[in-house]
Amino acid sequence: MPEIHAHRRAAAAALLHENGVDALLVTDLLNIRYLTGFTGSNAALLLHADGDAKTLFCTDGRYTTQSESEVPDLERVLDRASARALAVHAAEQGYGRTGFESQHVSVEEHEHLKVRFDRVELVRTPGLVEQLRVVKDEVEIAALRAACAAADRALAALIEAGGVRPGRTELEVARDLENRMLEHGSSGISFESIVAAGPNSAIPHHRPTGAELSRGDFVKFDFGATVDGYHSDMTRMVVIGEPADWQREIYDLVHRAQAAGAEAVRPGAVVSEVDAAARSVIAGAGYGEQFAHGLGHGVGLEVHEAPSLAAAGVGTLSAGMAVTVEPGVYLAGRGGVRIEDTLVVRDSGPELLTLSTKDLVAV
Amino acid sequence: MPEIHAHRRAAAAALLHENGVDALLVTDLLNIRYLTGFTGSNAALLLHADGDAKTLFCTDGRYTTQSESEVPDLERVLDRASARALAVHAAEQGYGRTGFESQHVSVEEHEHLKVRFDRVELVRTPGLVEQLRVVKDEVEIAALRAACAAADRALAALIEAGGVRPGRTELEVARDLENRMLEHGSSGISFESIVAAGPNSAIPHHRPTGAELSRGDFVKFDFGATVDGYHSDMTRMVVIGEPADWQREIYDLVHRAQAAGAEAVRPGAVVSEVDAAARSVIAGAGYGEQFAHGLGHGVGLEVHEAPSLAAAGVGTLSAGMAVTVEPGVYLAGRGGVRIEDTLVVRDSGPELLTLSTKDLVAV
Repeated sequence: MPEIHAHRRAAAAALLHENGVDALLVTDLLNIRYLTGFTGSNAALLLHADGDAKTLFCTDGRYTTQSESEVPDLERVLDRASARALAVHAAEQGYGRTGFESQHVSVEEHEHLKVRFDRVELVRTPGLVEQLRVVKDEVEIAALRAACAAADRALAALIEAGGVRPGRTELEVARDLENRMLEHGSSGISFESIVAAGPNSAIPHHRPTGAELSRGDFVKFDFGATVDGYHSDMTRMVVIGEPADWQREIYDLVHRAQAAGAEAVRPGAVVSEVDAAARSVIAGAGYGEQFAHGLGHGVGLEVHEAPSLAAAGVGTLSAGMAVTVEPGVYLAGRGGVRIEDTLVVRDSGPELLTLSTKDLVAV
Repeated sequence: MPEIHAHRRAAAAALLHENGVDALLVTDLLNIRYLTGFTGSNAALLLHADGDAKTLFCTDGRYTTQSESEVPDLERVLDRASARALAVHAAEQGYGRTGFESQHVSVEEHEHLKVRFDRVELVRTPGLVEQLRVVKDEVEIAALRAACAAADRALAALIEAGGVRPGRTELEVARDLENRMLEHGSSGISFESIVAAGPNSAIPHHRPTGAELSRGDFVKFDFGATVDGYHSDMTRMVVIGEPADWQREIYDLVHRAQAAGAEAVRPGAVVSEVDAAARSVIAGAGYGEQFAHGLGHGVGLEVHEAPSLAAAGVGTLSAGMAVTVEPGVYLAGRGGVRIEDTLVVRDSGPELLTLSTKDLVAV
């Protein structure tokens, strides 16, 4: 849908005016995808503040057909060294101040670009497109919703099929879950899935191993699907057998903290205060030190992006941001609990995208 | 195995002396893995030319336990901003000329590092560790061999199970193949698998689609496994049913070109001449324009790394390099053939790591 990309480019052009640059050399492939729809592995975009008529897209000959269909609405040149080719173009056209994505361009590549930009004044403009990406449009939210739905369906199918049972290894269960995401509409895996059983569930970012699931285990699932490049991110817990009292206790605690955090997600909320809303519940129960990570993060074309919902985070939430809320309590050697949702900040209250039950599931 | 990493660091230290720097700030995670064995997602290494006693490793608190077990032999500090923490250390210790990986460090991060390095003379030293990585040691070759074996076994199992048959989609077959790689020892997928059936086989880098395999189709498989971070890369062709004459003809042509290319792989060979050895066979048969990509590339911790075996490539091969040889002929609208092996350059002639038959398989 070219309209949405043209719309995003118009917003970016306005941002160029605000930042006093005539053009921006976009080299980050996610930013290029956001602004053009192009999904190949080599491209650059010379976005002009005056709009699409002066904007130029570059990719290489491998993507001739693909770029015609994905980027029908921009003038295009083909060159393997895409960013450098656009730098030459800017120099030939006598561009004025031109920004570049200094948080993505390497020092070495910058040396090459400077030569080709010649007399163009090249200025560091980090994070301009990311600034736009932090607030999602409805096309993006639809993709996030679809990704979250694929993850929801995969988890439900896994549990229904008896896939979480004693004797299976974490790796087997992770692979099963991932295959089910692909069967339910995911085009790929959002990140390396976490399946952590028993004491391993106390490790916040545990990689699945050959460890077997056992009766009485907490099993932590932290996983995501991908649709149209957008990531989902969700954590759910399953207990094998009847939950023990200590398991119920920390589960309920984290559940209440998660609800408090989600409730604090609204336009204008200070991110550190959203973190505090959940953290204070856990700290109040004496488990503050067992929750040693931030509350959440933005999610979109990257699985971790701005804003950071953390004690040290800065800024406020706006309608349209998509964030995770994922408090946890980890008891080393015994087990841990994390519950994570992906939410969209809305004026009317957060829209929940991850719809799997947050009741403690016993299988 | 810490010895091998100490050995690689000693080689790197010698390279620092050669390049006239006292230390190197290593920030690329693959280079850090190569030099230390660390597999986490945040780390930096301040490698000193005087050796391990002065070398410092930094990661963050999430990796306390993991780094103790993976990097037992280096002094360690914990800091989330790992590279910046090491820059401060270098400044405090009054380091002399210090190199940094200017092809990996962004312009923005460089600004932050410069401030922290203070009076240390910071110099661009792109590609130093990569220079070492291009020649593989036996530990690396063993991992490449295991990755290639996982891919070989997966393809054999797929074919034996009747997995390549009319009515299945490219996507189904790709997923089946990938699962079989995981079952046969692969820890992940080396790159997005190519399964291209019928006319799609004429697209060099086709992404699997919902297109169904049909009788008479060429089916191209280009895929790889990963073991200990090392990638395999192999392309094989299958025909569904009895091969047609034109299929036999271009298959035999590419087969001969592949053999000629592989035969040219030896220490001292000029890379452009290796490319020419295979290309001349195809051009001689009148299909030169239907072979529009390079002959091959290095493979290791990255699936595409130096050297490039291409007409425009520079340099010569050395014993211990691992490279692919992958000529192809693509007939638009009909079908294409590529045959690709991963080989190790040896004094006694290339060691073939991808052992699947290169006879045309008909199913």
